[in-house]
Parts: sequence; C-alpha cells; structure tokens
Amino acid sequence: MMIGVLGPKGSYSEKAAGQWLAEIFPGETASIHSESCRDPVLHYCDDIQDVFSFLREGPVDIGLVPVENSIEGSVGVTLDMLLEHDVTIIGETVVAIEHCLLSKGRKEDIRIILSHPQGLAQCRHFLKENFRGAELRTTGSTSHAAKLATEFEEMAAIASRESAQTYGLNILVSNIQDRKHNHTRFLIMVRSDEASAGYPYRSYEDRTYKTSIIVYLDRDRPGALYEILGEFARRKINLTRIESRPSKKTLGDYLFYIDLEGRTSDDIIKEAIYNVESKVGMLKMLGSYPASEPV
Amino acid sequence: MMIGVLGPKGSYSEKAAGQWLAEIFPGETASIHSESCRDPVLHYCDDIQDVFSFLREGPVDIGLVPVENSIEGSVGVTLDMLLEHDVTIIGETVVAIEHCLLSKGRKEDIRIILSHPQGLAQCRHFLKENFRGAELRTTGSTSHAAKLATEFEEMAAIASRESAQTYGLNILVSNIQDRKHNHTRFLIMVRSDEASAGYPYRSYEDRTYKTSIIVYLDRDRPGALYEILGEFARRKINLTRIESRPSKKTLGDYLFYIDLEGRTSDDIIKEAIYNVESKVGMLKMLGSYPASEPV
Repeated sequence: MMIGVLGPKGSYSEKAAGQWLAEIFPGETASIHSESCRDPVLHYCDDIQDVFSFLREGPVDIGLVPVENSIEGSVGVTLDMLLEHDVTIIGETVVAIEHCLLSKGRKEDIRIILSHPQGLAQCRHFLKENFRGAELRTTGSTSHAAKLATEFEEMAAIASRESAQTYGLNILVSNIQDRKHNHTRFLIMVRSDEASAGYPYRSYEDRTYKTSIIVYLDRDRPGALYEILGEFARRKINLTRIESRPSKKTLGDYLFYIDLEGRTSDDIIKEAIYNVESKVGMLKMLGSYPASEPV
Repeated sequence: MMIGVLGPKGSYSEKAAGQWLAEIFPGETASIHSESCRDPVLHYCDDIQDVFSFLREGPVDIGLVPVENSIEGSVGVTLDMLLEHDVTIIGETVVAIEHCLLSKGRKEDIRIILSHPQGLAQCRHFLKENFRGAELRTTGSTSHAAKLATEFEEMAAIASRESAQTYGLNILVSNIQDRKHNHTRFLIMVRSDEASAGYPYRSYEDRTYKTSIIVYLDRDRPGALYEILGEFARRKINLTRIESRPSKKTLGDYLFYIDLEGRTSDDIIKEAIYNVESKVGMLKMLGSYPASEPV
C-alpha cells in the first residue's frame, strides 16, 4: 500500500499519515517507512497537485492532502483538485501544528524566509513584526522549505520541530503561528473506481461518519442555497462545514463544498442528497468516511 | 484626499483606484498622481495590512484593497482585516486581470518567479507546465514583483502589462492565468468614525446597493446558518456572496461573510439584519455601498 503525501521527509503530511495509520491499525506498529509490499510505504510528492496525479496514474494507492487549517482556512488547491479528479474520500485526520523558525544561522542574519504559502499565512503577524523586510519564498511543503534552508545561513524555514531534527537545523523561535492553537485537517482518498471496498478493511459501526459533497447552484436563482440547506435542516442533519469556492467561470459564481454528519448508507442522508441533487446544477459526491475525533 | 493602495506604481490596485474615481467623478479628469490637496493622491503601501494600518493611523483617508478573485477566490488577509479594523466599506470596483510573465531576460533563463500569492495561485497550471523546477517568491503586490525582477535576468514577475512598461521589462508571455476571464473585486473603505457622510459626496438613488456583514453563529447549534439565511430568503433579499472564514479559535468554528443586495436605509434590510442580530453570537456591519456594474 503506497500512500502519497507532501514531501520531503519531515512534513506535517507525514505526521498525518502516521496518525491515520495508527488509528486504522490500532495496536499494530505499522511502519510507514517499511519497504515490504504488505506494509504501508510513503511516496513523497512535490506538491498537492502531484498527490492527485500520482493517485490517478500510479504508483500511489492512497492520497493524503491538507484541506483546512484553523487559522488560515481552506487549502484552495485541494478544493479545486477534489472537483477535477475522480477521487473518493475514505478518511480524515487532524494534526496539531506548531510552526518553528528553523535555520543554520542566527536570528539577526535571516534575510530570506521559506515555507508553504499556508505556513507563511499562518505566521503573518510574526513575520510582520520580526522580519518586515525579509524576502518570502514559497515552497511545495514546509519540509521542503526546511531542506532548502540548509543551504545558506541567511535563510530560515517555517516548518515543524521534527524538520529541525531531520535536516540538522536550529530552532530559532518555536510556536510562531499567529494563534497558539493551530490544527490542520487532512483528507485521505482513493481513486473512485477502487472506492467500492470503502474505508480500508472494515466499516466502523461505532464511529460518527461525515459525508462530503460539492454542489453547483443554478446562478441567478435567489434563495437557492437556502433551499439546499433546508433539505438538511428539515431532517436535522448537522452541517459541519460549508465553504464557497469560485466556479472560475465568472466573478460572483460559486461552488459550495458541504460536509455533513452521517453516511450515505443512512436512509435520511440518501434522501436529503437525492432531493438536493434535483435542485442544483451539479452535485459531486466526495465520499462518506469516519470523522476524526474532535480536537 | 489620500487613497491607500498596494504599491509600488503599476499595481492592479492603482488601476482599481483610477477606475473607481472615474466612476464617482464622471466627466472629470481626476488625476490620481496630483500633489494638490483637493485632488486624490495615491499612497502606495507595502501590503494589505499596511493599507488598513495607514487608514487607522493616517495619512490615508480612503483604503482600497482586493477582496476576491474569480479564479482563486477570497483574499484571506483582507477578510481578516475587515473583522479586526473599524472600517466601513463605501464602494467596490471590479478590474479585469491579465497576468503577464515579465523579465529582463529570456524565457529559457528564468529560474526564479515572483508575484503576490494570488498571482502565483491564479497561474498555477501555467507555472506547473512551464516552470516546474523554478523557485517561487512571494511579494506584497504584483507590481513589487515587477520592480524586483529588474535586478536579475534569471528572474521573472507575474504582473500586469502596465508594470512591464513602468519597470522596463519584456513581456515574455501574456495572459498566463489559468482561465482567460479573470477579474478581481476591490473594496473601498473609510474609517468607521468618518463614515457617516457615506459614499463620497452623494448618494446614488439610481444604483443597486450592496450591504456587507460578518456574522459569528453560536457553535453547536445545528441549523443556525439555515435560520439566518431564512431571514433574507423570506424577504426576497438576494445574497450575492456567502463566504466562511475560520474564527481562529478552533478547527470547525467559522465566521460567515455575507453580501446582500439592498442598503441599510431600506426598511426590509434593516428588519432582516435586526432579526439576524438577535440570533447570532456577533454581527458586524461593514457598510452599504453602490454595487459595481456586473462584469
């Protein structure tokens, strides 16, 4: 089983993969670095688009991507890829994020700061107050930033504590995100044509499930979103998230990404989604999967 | 009248300011580069946070910031600042965005690409296909990227056609955003304690108005968003946009940014907002302002 994650070694995605595996194989010591065919192995990808491409074309069997952060919100590229690719979500996991400023050099020498765009955005206040004139460079992941920061003493990366160890960097400042509590939610996906087996190996009767859909409303129909939400509210289905994303056709035209509590095997969910489908321009089912424990 | 915009010279914000001024002073040739006290003068800011800071502390009287793009969606930092600062929106304007790849050098020599994070995100496919290995650097604005790209031949900026002229760069490729049609909506704001005079100089009886609010629902109350939308749907008030943004307290806790058609001087809008206010944890009024022409 090969799991595609943002690389290189030391990324938050790697942590998320380990955490998710420990959840689905409780008690087993599943090594994600094993080379054996039976055991899960990580495949490090350069960026989020690549996780989706390698899932479609191989060699990846399972893709894991960040979708939402508690400070900076949605990861736009992940939302876009969920629409474009034939994938099914089979799980989610929430990882505590503690960003550190890592470098080979000293704080006063830092001129260049590297991170994933989300990492830079989550530490906006810190950067503004402490490194106003610094040059900001984006990388495909925070661990890639850490790897690059080994090259020059005037460079620092915003990345995890683990990355400092992996790449032999000093932690100049720890916990630098704008809010102390910082969590990122990751999605675990398979190709839709292989999703029929469902959540790896078994169904979890004892767990709360979530179902994720994307809907595109017909434009110029006032109250359309209200009507859709009514199908859920009327059945007391709780929505855990509703997020708009541009349709990219024209300004003011949106898709809605909706997460709701329940699974498509529940009659009430099936019925609500059936009714919603008849009222919208497009509905894409992204999957039903066990919700992560509340943080 | 000093207008704070993203600088330096050549930014899309500058274009937005010119467009907005032409709308509110039709027929007049308002020069935004004039030094006279009566005429509008631009104050170039390094980033979006600075536009808000200079509006609060001076010398800026009016702030202009990007809020939403048709390809990449909301500008997160603008939404966050609208919550944090005491500002009132008095207008909006929509600018057509045509990103170009600008450089002193040749396409085959480009190793480093600079732009605002939104510029990089709007050209994601182009970058992935043509400059896979390139280093991506973020800047406070696209025009700042263009200015920096004058330093080395191996650097290119994603910026406007006008920036090429302003900074003496070559247009290596034009129209490189992922979708041909690309528009950004800008907001025009004043300090709330000075907003009582309303939209500069006059009220527009003949124009459609928009009203923007931020609401924070009480958590753990299923159907709360549905109830809120009901207050508008019941009165046939059209919502032009609904956008969620993390409350930053904990994952899964959101604020909703809602734009609706109508103005607070309309009884029906006043009534709807009064009712919504009683049902939510917090409601912040951002202002009523003439809507830009549809694009």
